[in-house]
Amino acid sequence: MPGQVLYEANPPPEASRLPEELLKLRVQLDVTNVLTKDEVESLKRFRRAANYIAAAMIFLKSNILLEKELSHEDIKPRLLGHWGTCPGLVLVHAHLNRIIKKTGLDALYVIGPGHGAPGYLSCLWLEDSLSKFYSEYTRDMKGLHRLITKFSLPGGFPSHINSETPGAIHEGGELGYALGVAFGAVMDNPDLVAVCVVGDGEAETGPTATAWHGYKYLDPAESGAVLPIVHVNGFKISERTIYGTMDDKELVALFSGYGYQVRFVEDVDHIDNDLAGSMEWALGEIRTIQQAARSGNPIVKPRWPVLIMRTPKGWSAPKKVHGEFIEGSFHAHQVPLPKAGEDDEELSALQSWLSSYGPRELFNTDGTIKSEVVDGVLPDDEEKKIGQRKEAMRTFIELDIPAWREHSAEQGDMVSATGALGTFLKDVIERNSSTFRIFSPDELESNKLSDVLKVTGRNFQWDVASRGKGGRVIEILSEHTCQAMLQGYTLTGRCGLFPSYEAFLGIVHTMMVQYSKFVKMASETKWHTNIGSLNYLETSTWARQEHNGFSHQNPSFIGAILNLKPTFSRVYLPPDANCMLSTMAHCFRARGYINLVIGSKQPTPVWLDKEEADKHCIAGASVWKFASVDEGVNPDVVLVGVGVEMTFEVIAAAALLRQHSPHLRVRVVNVTDLMILGPEHSHPHALTDTDFYALFTEDKPVHINFHGYPIELKGLMFGRPGLSRVTIEGYREEGTTTSPFDMMLCNRTSRYHVAAAAIRGAALHNAKVSIDAHEKTSYLMHLAQKDKAYIYEHGTDPKGTFDKPTF
Amino acid sequence: MPGQVLYEANPPPEASRLPEELLKLRVQLDVTNVLTKDEVESLKRFRRAANYIAAAMIFLKSNILLEKELSHEDIKPRLLGHWGTCPGLVLVHAHLNRIIKKTGLDALYVIGPGHGAPGYLSCLWLEDSLSKFYSEYTRDMKGLHRLITKFSLPGGFPSHINSETPGAIHEGGELGYALGVAFGAVMDNPDLVAVCVVGDGEAETGPTATAWHGYKYLDPAESGAVLPIVHVNGFKISERTIYGTMDDKELVALFSGYGYQVRFVEDVDHIDNDLAGSMEWALGEIRTIQQAARSGNPIVKPRWPVLIMRTPKGWSAPKKVHGEFIEGSFHAHQVPLPKAGEDDEELSALQSWLSSYGPRELFNTDGTIKSEVVDGVLPDDEEKKIGQRKEAMRTFIELDIPAWREHSAEQGDMVSATGALGTFLKDVIERNSSTFRIFSPDELESNKLSDVLKVTGRNFQWDVASRGKGGRVIEILSEHTCQAMLQGYTLTGRCGLFPSYEAFLGIVHTMMVQYSKFVKMASETKWHTNIGSLNYLETSTWARQEHNGFSHQNPSFIGAILNLKPTFSRVYLPPDANCMLSTMAHCFRARGYINLVIGSKQPTPVWLDKEEADKHCIAGASVWKFASVDEGVNPDVVLVGVGVEMTFEVIAAAALLRQHSPHLRVRVVNVTDLMILGPEHSHPHALTDTDFYALFTEDKPVHINFHGYPIELKGLMFGRPGLSRVTIEGYREEGTTTSPFDMMLCNRTSRYHVAAAAIRGAALHNAKVSIDAHEKTSYLMHLAQKDKAYIYEHGTDPKGTFDKPTF
Repeated sequence: MPGQVLYEANPPPEASRLPEELLKLRVQLDVTNVLTKDEVESLKRFRRAANYIAAAMIFLKSNILLEKELSHEDIKPRLLGHWGTCPGLVLVHAHLNRIIKKTGLDALYVIGPGHGAPGYLSCLWLEDSLSKFYSEYTRDMKGLHRLITKFSLPGGFPSHINSETPGAIHEGGELGYALGVAFGAVMDNPDLVAVCVVGDGEAETGPTATAWHGYKYLDPAESGAVLPIVHVNGFKISERTIYGTMDDKELVALFSGYGYQVRFVEDVDHIDNDLAGSMEWALGEIRTIQQAARSGNPIVKPRWPVLIMRTPKGWSAPKKVHGEFIEGSFHAHQVPLPKAGEDDEELSALQSWLSSYGPRELFNTDGTIKSEVVDGVLPDDEEKKIGQRKEAMRTFIELDIPAWREHSAEQGDMVSATGALGTFLKDVIERNSSTFRIFSPDELESNKLSDVLKVTGRNFQWDVASRGKGGRVIEILSEHTCQAMLQGYTLTGRCGLFPSYEAFLGIVHTMMVQYSKFVKMASETKWHTNIGSLNYLETSTWARQEHNGFSHQNPSFIGAILNLKPTFSRVYLPPDANCMLSTMAHCFRARGYINLVIGSKQPTPVWLDKEEADKHCIAGASVWKFASVDEGVNPDVVLVGVGVEMTFEVIAAAALLRQHSPHLRVRVVNVTDLMILGPEHSHPHALTDTDFYALFTEDKPVHINFHGYPIELKGLMFGRPGLSRVTIEGYREEGTTTSPFDMMLCNRTSRYHVAAAAIRGAALHNAKVSIDAHEKTSYLMHLAQKDKAYIYEHGTDPKGTFDKPTF
Repeated sequence: MPGQVLYEANPPPEASRLPEELLKLRVQLDVTNVLTKDEVESLKRFRRAANYIAAAMIFLKSNILLEKELSHEDIKPRLLGHWGTCPGLVLVHAHLNRIIKKTGLDALYVIGPGHGAPGYLSCLWLEDSLSKFYSEYTRDMKGLHRLITKFSLPGGFPSHINSETPGAIHEGGELGYALGVAFGAVMDNPDLVAVCVVGDGEAETGPTATAWHGYKYLDPAESGAVLPIVHVNGFKISERTIYGTMDDKELVALFSGYGYQVRFVEDVDHIDNDLAGSMEWALGEIRTIQQAARSGNPIVKPRWPVLIMRTPKGWSAPKKVHGEFIEGSFHAHQVPLPKAGEDDEELSALQSWLSSYGPRELFNTDGTIKSEVVDGVLPDDEEKKIGQRKEAMRTFIELDIPAWREHSAEQGDMVSATGALGTFLKDVIERNSSTFRIFSPDELESNKLSDVLKVTGRNFQWDVASRGKGGRVIEILSEHTCQAMLQGYTLTGRCGLFPSYEAFLGIVHTMMVQYSKFVKMASETKWHTNIGSLNYLETSTWARQEHNGFSHQNPSFIGAILNLKPTFSRVYLPPDANCMLSTMAHCFRARGYINLVIGSKQPTPVWLDKEEADKHCIAGASVWKFASVDEGVNPDVVLVGVGVEMTFEVIAAAALLRQHSPHLRVRVVNVTDLMILGPEHSHPHALTDTDFYALFTEDKPVHINFHGYPIELKGLMFGRPGLSRVTIEGYREEGTTTSPFDMMLCNRTSRYHVAAAAIRGAALHNAKVSIDAHEKTSYLMHLAQKDKAYIYEHGTDPKGTFDKPTF
């Protein structure tokens, strides 16, 4: 770098290291004798048994208790599973059970490294929690044999934790979301502690990196607590982790800054005393913070506990095989002995490894577990066991839904649909003061939902104004955190709403897909009961993001939903305030869906009175007679609006056509439930062909003005008979900061474009129309250009553009 | 919480606060006299002028220099823009120019809060950088008038920073990515410093929260530096920010933990001395770290500088209007006086506000700027100015592409496509040792690209093994960081590759869309030159994620690309190793595209020799004569494979049909360039109808076995004439941990399903076939069930399943 600067480096390079004083921030505890010798032995036996089973699950297809020397024939033909994280998951599980047994703690176990399924499943089997849900997984030889030999095979438990795994509330696939989910789960569950293991791989993700702030949005008076355990084992798939290379000073500074008290758990020779003491300390801190808040004297910026647990990757695996380190290296991440089925050295290493747990001391010859392995660790109360928590069975606490009609708008008025929704949500919150929440990326006011703030507050504990007051609204500028908290809240039996700018909901696209996979498998798993729906509200859509411009225009979340299983995917585009209310009331009642509702926050015409709106929403679509020629009977062309602004332009186009092509018989249809359009039988809401024809005719041209990307609706409709008569326009990735009507013009969704499409379509089917079609569409395009020129000259839309058409 | 725990809260509640000692970690500087009085006056004048212009841009349509008292008629009809962040952006800009002028620093200005466009544009005008690119924005009354009156209006600059804004390399829409982009920009630009403003709203996002770790992947010997400035003004749209409620101790701990030295810049009464001194200190620290590394003696874990700049939100706006605080509150976020056009109090407040900058002291009456406003601040060297940096003009440094044919595989062999690609990438890296990088979320080994590690290393400065050694590979388990770094690297004229598991690339869906918007506007902006392509490699696809299971199955990134503008969106599914090589060599040569390449890492048959592969890739699709009946002449049915495994099943289906329906004339087509399938003219690669018919016939049944979600391909093809003969299957969101072939079975993409589809299709068109169609399809489904039963019984696919069919 050229030139001169005033300051020389300060402090000098050597001193650029962090000061030793930081180490004082580590929580020091005397843990040497937390446990009796017997307790330590109990925990060790439990862990040995669980680790044995977990390792066996990865490798063995027979000889599962090492009844004889292992042979290559005992090894599964395909070795699947991730060993690296298992011993850590087992360690936490054992200690969680111990403390539950001792204190009666209500705890959920939320696991970030879901690839460590063997470590979790082995513990569930030892708990005898599996047999509660799956009669084939009894705690005897039959159940153990199945657990081990069928793991990761078709029909057995899959390689990652999912909704088939009892006690789980989190899909163990895409990393980064466990911590936020844990925060959502404990909200409004004041006695619950979610112990959340975050792997040091997962800790590198953005969603986790910001989820640490979750406590700033959790009121200890009304909600439970999360105890995060960062499992630092140093390696990802093949590279070292960030957290694995950070020293104590760096870690303690980072987590102190996030707002935590940091306790390192790393005495591997005395890990049981270390972890037991650390957990007891942590739960004591949690209790102190909660008691202070619940006695009306909340601690300012309470520093919640976090444990940083350093144990070797794949701890207790062979140290070295073929001259390469296994335990403590990335080689232990997945299958530590990948050639155990053919290589003698590896088979012998496996024999030693498995024998090291001493299975004969742990299991009876009939495959049952010796009582001393589990008795000292497991709680006596079945319902307290990790695998049998009622919160994870997702019994939906139904909402008391207020009458939405009381919030309905007068037909003909100009009303903000989200504004009307805000008044309804206010009532929802009043009636469901501990089972409903709103998670929003700081857009509540902007999206005109702020009426809810009349009866509740923003729950932001770091802000003096809202600290200690609770509140149903969380506004954090992290869509990932909003989504994770909503998932945790929903999967533990409650229900919420995630309002968002349309363009930015796609930030959680893959998170939502992970959630949908969890829900799909739950729906195929007998013991799962109902959950509420996951509800999204998209507003500030592209059609009215002419002010923020191109970057704020992206309706692709529709496509994300369309790819899901039809059994639970729903997309609604209510065309006015009354339809919005009817739709949202339905969503809050409905169970197990993923609902995407898209509407405007701007004042727009109320086309339907409340009863018409309700009927329209139940039907999903209907002919809008008032906007059609002769009430839409026997049309030459069908114009379809899907979405608020798209429908407005369709109605305006029908009015234009009345004026310019008075002989053209135009039918106007609005679709509010997108899923009706798919081919017969493709979705529970898909219209039969007969009903489809009743709305759209059998053979007349149909032009659809669609709110989303045209390609997505085209994909949905593909397979309906006779689509060659259907044309579709929508958002075509054109826009900038401009006027509202210019957005319609540049995306070819304006009334002029719709009217021209109608004429072109009709001309193909009707000689009368075709005579002057070219002239008329040219004239319409001329009008479009005139408006565009006006907009670019005056900076605004021509006067009257958005006046309601008269008929 | 019930029960007893060993430890009582420790330390007690009051002491749970962070210790005062942490405050010592703040960097202390004596900044009282960094600047001369004249220098302070210069900077203040520049800032006043810039702030004046920025505020005027939001409000005025006439009377732009307050030549007379403001009237309601001077106010724009629609007030757009975000004032809150502008004064901060101006402050940094002024000081950046000052230090460039003084030291000749090479600096890029990367702005997170892109909604502060007025603050940036006003500075660019003062720099006289706008007129270099837009002749209408001269630094005189004409240019100023246009800048102010046309801002946020059609034809003027949009409300957010984008590629139309000179000097910008980052779309100013979706928040969270600026910091990661800055890191990418300085890589392999050793003299460059990217000064990156991160807003305290943006700082709440996950992507930013983990991007702070970026320095851990930046070798100061080979790359430049990022100077992050966290702009803490305390409020988002309507809620306080996390960082705004964190105190000095929390912030200094957090950033020390991230690895930084923290300097607070917050003396608002002497902000120029404070910021000037702090920037000089920061640049001195950067130089020290770089010099140490470049002299071969790198500092261990260097603590790079970060500035935390606390200034009031909307600083210098009116203090209070209508009894409500404006400056320093969320009311200043957007338009502080929204009714200035009608309300007298607001108009008067605006008059006072704008007058407070003293425009008459800053501007000459002809609208030119007084020399004393800019002379003391702006660098003399035009190319050093923020708005004229060559890096931001994106002149693509072309790669020296090795001959891919040297890495090609033998026809008939079983070869991993990504393995072959790894050997090619090794050569790419050797030939382009400072202009090509790989950004991967820890999946390089898993995705079989590790051959590159023979000639380069993983660049991970926190790991003792790789520190100080540079390296072309960055593996951080944050897709957001990978994407942001790749964007910054690409938009400054270089080129890279982002390999990812297929299911998790969607994590960056909306980031990619933001990038595409930047690129789209750049392509419509005359002064932009070429950039390289943004290259994605998806492997570990759903079809071979039978081991990790359902959570790892999600091909939706294809749909993300399909929604983009056809001018730059490309999706390739090369069917074998040779096609992979040909495709990737093309992608590295091509300019300005977003390339998505999808292929397998497993050994799969090499169907085409290198010359056939090249021809096939150029054509995008062709009839595979070797797998067809009579070389595919005059077929009864066309079977199409898109994707590696889908194509294998199609070929196996053709072999099955030969056996079971020997009279059926089957043509096999492979599509490697997905975009050829869209309707004529829909995409530059879309086949004409004539060419489409040549491949797929005019009227014969076509069954497409597609790698992605069927709905996405259906959307793409909609509009091709005669689609009712086309059926499409693909990933239908079914899967678990199972065998590879079971994935085909449960998604109906197996050879049996393909063959049955062929027979059903042919039966609809051919009476001969229809006679026994039902019987034959039943038999095929029986075979499918038999295989399924085998898989569930034995846990593996039937022997020989993936043997290459013989013909």
